[in-house]
Amino acid sequence: MTEQHFSFAKSIATVSLSGTLPEKLEAAAAVGFDGVEIFENDLLTYDGSPADIRRIAEGLGLAITIFQPFRDFEAMPENIRVRNLDRAERKFDIMQALGTDLVLVCSNVQPSAIDDDIRAAADLAEMAERASRRGLRVGYEALAWGRHVNTWKHAWDIVQKADHPALGLIVDSFHTLSINDDPAGIADVPGDRIFFVQLADAPLMKMDVLSWSRHFRNFPGQGELPVDDFLRAVLASGYRGPLSLEIFNDDFRTAPARQTARDGLRSLILSEAKAGYGKGLPEPPAFDGFEFLEFAVDEQAKEDLAAFLGSLGFRHAGRHRSKSVELYRQGRVNLVLNSEPDSAASEHFQMHGPSVCAMALRVDDADKAVDRAEALLYGTWRERIGEGERRIQSVRAPDGTLVYLVQPDQSGHSIWEDDFTLFPETEESGLTCIDHVAQALPFGRMDSFILFYRGVFGFVLEQLWELPDPYGLIQSRAIVSPDRSVRLPLNFSESRKTATGRFVSATAGAGVHHIAFATDTIEKTLTSLTKADAPMLPVPANYYDDLAARLGLDDDVLSDLQRFGLLFDRDDQGEFSHAYTETFEERFFFEIVQRRGGYQQFGAVNAAVRMAMQTRLREQTQIEDFLS
Amino acid sequence: MTEQHFSFAKSIATVSLSGTLPEKLEAAAAVGFDGVEIFENDLLTYDGSPADIRRIAEGLGLAITIFQPFRDFEAMPENIRVRNLDRAERKFDIMQALGTDLVLVCSNVQPSAIDDDIRAAADLAEMAERASRRGLRVGYEALAWGRHVNTWKHAWDIVQKADHPALGLIVDSFHTLSINDDPAGIADVPGDRIFFVQLADAPLMKMDVLSWSRHFRNFPGQGELPVDDFLRAVLASGYRGPLSLEIFNDDFRTAPARQTARDGLRSLILSEAKAGYGKGLPEPPAFDGFEFLEFAVDEQAKEDLAAFLGSLGFRHAGRHRSKSVELYRQGRVNLVLNSEPDSAASEHFQMHGPSVCAMALRVDDADKAVDRAEALLYGTWRERIGEGERRIQSVRAPDGTLVYLVQPDQSGHSIWEDDFTLFPETEESGLTCIDHVAQALPFGRMDSFILFYRGVFGFVLEQLWELPDPYGLIQSRAIVSPDRSVRLPLNFSESRKTATGRFVSATAGAGVHHIAFATDTIEKTLTSLTKADAPMLPVPANYYDDLAARLGLDDDVLSDLQRFGLLFDRDDQGEFSHAYTETFEERFFFEIVQRRGGYQQFGAVNAAVRMAMQTRLREQTQIEDFLS
Repeated sequence: MTEQHFSFAKSIATVSLSGTLPEKLEAAAAVGFDGVEIFENDLLTYDGSPADIRRIAEGLGLAITIFQPFRDFEAMPENIRVRNLDRAERKFDIMQALGTDLVLVCSNVQPSAIDDDIRAAADLAEMAERASRRGLRVGYEALAWGRHVNTWKHAWDIVQKADHPALGLIVDSFHTLSINDDPAGIADVPGDRIFFVQLADAPLMKMDVLSWSRHFRNFPGQGELPVDDFLRAVLASGYRGPLSLEIFNDDFRTAPARQTARDGLRSLILSEAKAGYGKGLPEPPAFDGFEFLEFAVDEQAKEDLAAFLGSLGFRHAGRHRSKSVELYRQGRVNLVLNSEPDSAASEHFQMHGPSVCAMALRVDDADKAVDRAEALLYGTWRERIGEGERRIQSVRAPDGTLVYLVQPDQSGHSIWEDDFTLFPETEESGLTCIDHVAQALPFGRMDSFILFYRGVFGFVLEQLWELPDPYGLIQSRAIVSPDRSVRLPLNFSESRKTATGRFVSATAGAGVHHIAFATDTIEKTLTSLTKADAPMLPVPANYYDDLAARLGLDDDVLSDLQRFGLLFDRDDQGEFSHAYTETFEERFFFEIVQRRGGYQQFGAVNAAVRMAMQTRLREQTQIEDFLS
Repeated sequence: MTEQHFSFAKSIATVSLSGTLPEKLEAAAAVGFDGVEIFENDLLTYDGSPADIRRIAEGLGLAITIFQPFRDFEAMPENIRVRNLDRAERKFDIMQALGTDLVLVCSNVQPSAIDDDIRAAADLAEMAERASRRGLRVGYEALAWGRHVNTWKHAWDIVQKADHPALGLIVDSFHTLSINDDPAGIADVPGDRIFFVQLADAPLMKMDVLSWSRHFRNFPGQGELPVDDFLRAVLASGYRGPLSLEIFNDDFRTAPARQTARDGLRSLILSEAKAGYGKGLPEPPAFDGFEFLEFAVDEQAKEDLAAFLGSLGFRHAGRHRSKSVELYRQGRVNLVLNSEPDSAASEHFQMHGPSVCAMALRVDDADKAVDRAEALLYGTWRERIGEGERRIQSVRAPDGTLVYLVQPDQSGHSIWEDDFTLFPETEESGLTCIDHVAQALPFGRMDSFILFYRGVFGFVLEQLWELPDPYGLIQSRAIVSPDRSVRLPLNFSESRKTATGRFVSATAGAGVHHIAFATDTIEKTLTSLTKADAPMLPVPANYYDDLAARLGLDDDVLSDLQRFGLLFDRDDQGEFSHAYTETFEERFFFEIVQRRGGYQQFGAVNAAVRMAMQTRLREQTQIEDFLS
């Protein structure tokens, strides 16, 4: 743990969570927030009084940090100005009933607003004066799409002009970062003149900023805006008020409120730590690839999967000393087939069918990693162990599967020597290690997984791809360890008819959809696999015609690729050859890959070929089943 | 029917349809397309040869109108230029195997492309020369996001510079209209120099044009681009080749291919007719509001719904002479409760539960309207009728429900006098007519419904609203008859947890979600309803606090609204007061509305209040059910 520093109160706007207002408050309190922003629309659709909300919040131990938003107030024509001040008085009534002293005024978006900072400042000063008579305060925030005021600096200029102690500045990372405005200068604003800080991230998108803001914001650490830089600048000002999340997100509106709220709190803990405050977090571990993957199987699936793996050159390398668990091995790849009754694996099998129930990563320090996960509110797990067996730490991923963290033992023994009876080595087919493990996520869950892998493990997000399946688009984005020894493409699909969508439905969202094994000699490997009758996915001849035209490959290179049924990609860094197996029981499949030079991608350009062929095979099987 | 003119061959690009390549071809042929564009990605993921595709297409009676796209060809640095010509030769091989003579070259998007029209023209001339040696042709199209060439005029300049008979221009409505380029000048291009015409529409969106194009295109008549103007200009050139649809749309990728293809063909028939070509279409009818709504019920639901309607002041006004069908009436509102066994209504009830199974609109000429629907490939239906009963024409909407078209009878009799035994009148509560009928559509079906109502009835699309339900956003968009006597808000939700999403799941997509009745005396009406214990939806007091602040209403106006439980809206045109009932068996509900002045909206600003209250009531009921 790093040195303990000032901890900020953590708050979330009710608009960020799904449900009725009481449900939102309950969720925020349940996961541990200190306060909530009351979003006006949530209040006015609620059939209890503001005083009822105050009581509910107090009962839950939640402060009401702010009431928001108050819109289109400043610098209006005179007749509206008077009405707006009346409107403010009515909202002050509500604030007093709610028991909050702060209201957020966002910059005017009305076409009739007057471009006059003096007017704006005078109006805000008048509102602040009226507020202060009731012991209330006003914060002024620049909307990125404000009519005349759309930068924090401009809002701050107006606040300074107004020069009223009950009027301060409110800053929001999205409004600043979405228009590429520089937050650095916020550090020079006196901290006590910043009345409130809202944080939001977002994926980078090319669209109008209002639509972007209203639908695609997400929690800091889930998107691509430099929220950390923003927060460092803000905290350098000396601001010590709440850090609050205000997220408009279509998925969050639908997701269970507690799940969203928990991710929100995690994001604030993470942001605070990165800025050098809060309780501190241990650093993420260093990684050294995959130690093993564990499959939940029953006896029949174990037999079938063992035969499948056998055709890929895996050998039965060991048997667990006390459990019904078998080890299959090739190179550095360890695959564990777990059919132990009454285990976490058997529970997983009941729920999801034959599937990967755990992934084990090699790390330098498992304890620190688990401490970090716990500080970020993720569940951890300790597997039941036999006499003399190794205890393996693990962290629960957002889909409930386990990520084991295996560190080198002082004894020098591997976990296999400790826990398994090992069998002698036999011939292999050249697979050296796990290159990547691709997961299919339920729609709307990508942000949760990104936060998990970035937050707990310090992984790095890669480029977003859109992959055309015959029945819809699949979004694919890899997240990788900084050393790239662990690579996890994450896929999801809005359509339930795509391979990804079908997988999610069929398996009730069991993550791992395919596993890629690396080889340095892919042609030799595929020769072995063919001999062993491995069920490889065929590649259409048309693919090679296009490849030839597209990349201008030599005829002999091309005919080699075609002979071995290889897909191919090339970029500035290097080359990539790969082949897929058929799908195991309509669930997961394997890939054989060889990287040459510095190629770091996953052959996304070829994904459409794979998915079309998988669809053809599946539909053929269905027709044959129907006819037989 | 208008005079018969030249009919264009109708074609669709395979990328517009879901499935494997043979499935796409089968769907296009089944609905009656003349040809298909083979989208290259569909070919290269297909595990048969181009000659196989040629045979399949021939067997289905489909021409292969074009092979597309050939990308990033012209004006490249010299080394790539040579490779690109080789690439073209390989694609020519494929075209000959496919049996198509035309390839689409789209303007170069590569950063390394040279901004030199002379080079571009020379390269295209060289490609055309090589093509012509094989009896093939090349069409050049400007992409809206082309590196140097992004307008049809610029592409046409280059084609003229190249001056080769095997090189022509290709125009695409999306690429021209998405960047607000003027298509008028296309009329002056010699028609035989335009080699191909692609049509696509799109909703107006503020985002980068590439993303817009790749995800949100739709069929002409489904979007908001002036495709008709574009087509008129193109056809004025004398072009007589195919009209072809090239649609990239996320929903279409997932929807059943035949359903999409049929909408595509409808859109081409409609576009052609609007441009003054093809077999012609009768004009849409003139409308005069709703004649009746028909509910599919069983005996129990009939009794419950009759009681519900009774509390709203409807009286039992008649009984069908030969069927188990009851008429409830008030003002001009006729509601028919159909529990006749073995009828279309009873089928509807089996599938969807108690729900609206048909809507009847008053029109000036039902026969012409049905002719128009049939010309646009929509199903029509004639209800079984008894001796001396009126035959009512109807058209089948995309959800399978019937839209009856009732026209004034020469006898002067209403349909009720002919078919029903009518009962004497009793006191009513002031409802005068049906103001609007709101439908909930399954996700991804909006475009089909828009095409239906616009195409068959000539309805007009209104503003898109996003309505926040406690569990997700709802998109809402009204489509109305030109005289506004028929107004149909169409709603859909990506989330299954919203009121709209739940309705679609619970009813298997039975359209009508709520019915609004108009009154000219809403306070009197609500007084009657309260006396009759009508189950009205309560409105939170907070709503009125906000309304007062927002609109600056007089205290007595406000207290009247609150006393009668009315929601309120105001715009430049007029005012709107409305109230909702509770939901009937978790399915549909009613609304009472009064419009004042020229207010033409639907009170969308108040929808969040309604949905929050409906959610509260539903969850309370669930808790009570759970506790009891």
